[in-house]
Amino acid sequence: MSIQPARGKFQSWRGVLLALSVIHAVPLCAAGELTWRALDPENTVFMELRNERVVIELNPGFAPETVKQFKRLVQERFYDGLPFYRVIDGFVAQGGDGSDLGELSEVPLIDAEFEIEWDQEWSFMPVQSPDMFAPETGFVNGFAVARNPSANTAWLTHCPGVVAMARNDDRDSSRTDFYIVIGQAPRYLDRNLNIFGRVVFGMDAVQRIQRGPTLNNGIIEDETRSTRMSRLRLVSDIPEEGRLSTYVLDTNSDAFADLLKDRRNRKQKFFHNKPPKVLDICQVPVNGRITK
Amino acid sequence: MSIQPARGKFQSWRGVLLALSVIHAVPLCAAGELTWRALDPENTVFMELRNERVVIELNPGFAPETVKQFKRLVQERFYDGLPFYRVIDGFVAQGGDGSDLGELSEVPLIDAEFEIEWDQEWSFMPVQSPDMFAPETGFVNGFAVARNPSANTAWLTHCPGVVAMARNDDRDSSRTDFYIVIGQAPRYLDRNLNIFGRVVFGMDAVQRIQRGPTLNNGIIEDETRSTRMSRLRLVSDIPEEGRLSTYVLDTNSDAFADLLKDRRNRKQKFFHNKPPKVLDICQVPVNGRITK
Repeated sequence: MSIQPARGKFQSWRGVLLALSVIHAVPLCAAGELTWRALDPENTVFMELRNERVVIELNPGFAPETVKQFKRLVQERFYDGLPFYRVIDGFVAQGGDGSDLGELSEVPLIDAEFEIEWDQEWSFMPVQSPDMFAPETGFVNGFAVARNPSANTAWLTHCPGVVAMARNDDRDSSRTDFYIVIGQAPRYLDRNLNIFGRVVFGMDAVQRIQRGPTLNNGIIEDETRSTRMSRLRLVSDIPEEGRLSTYVLDTNSDAFADLLKDRRNRKQKFFHNKPPKVLDICQVPVNGRITK
Repeated sequence: MSIQPARGKFQSWRGVLLALSVIHAVPLCAAGELTWRALDPENTVFMELRNERVVIELNPGFAPETVKQFKRLVQERFYDGLPFYRVIDGFVAQGGDGSDLGELSEVPLIDAEFEIEWDQEWSFMPVQSPDMFAPETGFVNGFAVARNPSANTAWLTHCPGVVAMARNDDRDSSRTDFYIVIGQAPRYLDRNLNIFGRVVFGMDAVQRIQRGPTLNNGIIEDETRSTRMSRLRLVSDIPEEGRLSTYVLDTNSDAFADLLKDRRNRKQKFFHNKPPKVLDICQVPVNGRITK
């Protein structure tokens, strides 16, 4: 069998793209109709990781006190230069100064904000009911949410990219250190931690954060090896002329509803075995973008 | 509020570890009892990515023809130096020469190996029934498997780390290029692609593969920017004295069954809201390790 390795590569881009676009039914196929929502500068944080930009959207609706403390800490430059000190591949990257787990911190603790009473005013884009981990799931302004209609409760669910406060056994023991989910959604943590935001841009940079040894529970003992957040800034604190604009897909639009429908009913020729008509809320991409 | 940033960090390692080990109930807590299985050198491939080692375990039981062709290509050094040319964060990293999607390749096509008839001889470690995407899930020798008992079929399921052959619309059009799942399990692809292995070690290196632009369907047009697989070697082709030994958790053991039970019934004080007693097969870590 003769094989042609390097030469003639990618000669058929059209074919490649056609074939691949089917495998990955991303929002792109309906991009013309989909709309984007501008993020609120008051609730958007830029995090720099090795000169790469990560954009975090905060969610004061679901975690008002956590967002308030996080914003204050960002504005005091608390996090600048601190490491991601506990990083387990496929699970979480946790960063901060470790003080909220020790005894020396003077930063106040945050009360639990695990779930909220459902606000009838909010628009809810349904995704799956029942879901394996909750009676129903859907999007609220781009955030993956689970709901229990019989209890009238709702909570942010642990999808990849979610940002939440670490704590110890006490429910009200969150303080400063936070984690970003970097692997398959650990949804067993839902309703047990203060999720307060999500990464809307730059997850590729987050995925390059140095991992710790599994046998040491992900803890990187040698601080010189760990990835540091060089700085975090609230976008509203950046002078307007130097600001980048940030957008995320509008999950309230009819076009997004159509996209969910398409994903639930895969009609492309590619699918020789039709998938079950269900959607994993954490597997629906809700991308962000930044522009000058 | 006065904050102590750099000084006094990590003064309480014991506390940190105690607290964190609860959040992440990894196999470690029962590590003494868990047993490890040595990988078969005939079905283990080392892939080098920027001097980092990635270990792939092949699965000839579920995809005999795909494994046969992949091994032959590895032995012919077909992949050495080829790029991951289509990489979408949160989805897949696809590499190869692109020829199986064009028209110039002389490598034979592979017939579909989407699912198999269940072999009663195999030991099956049950995880979840029903699962959202399949009547039941479980492990077969470390691999995440879904089954449909009424049809007596079984298939490898698209968890993070899974390695599968790309194809175009034709079911029998796999050839050379493969992808690794790097994000939330795209289980809608199950029973539609030839999954033939999984990464058992080095997913952190895989996560550092250069991403392509989402708006270009992940395609990296500028080949100089893409991450290349410098070489792939079948372990049995490496002289024994230079070989590393590779192991994965034995998912057939009683200790592993206990671990699943613990994950299903979270009894730690950490959980103020008990999670539903369900398990996502793709969220159960089945780690590998390598030793000299």
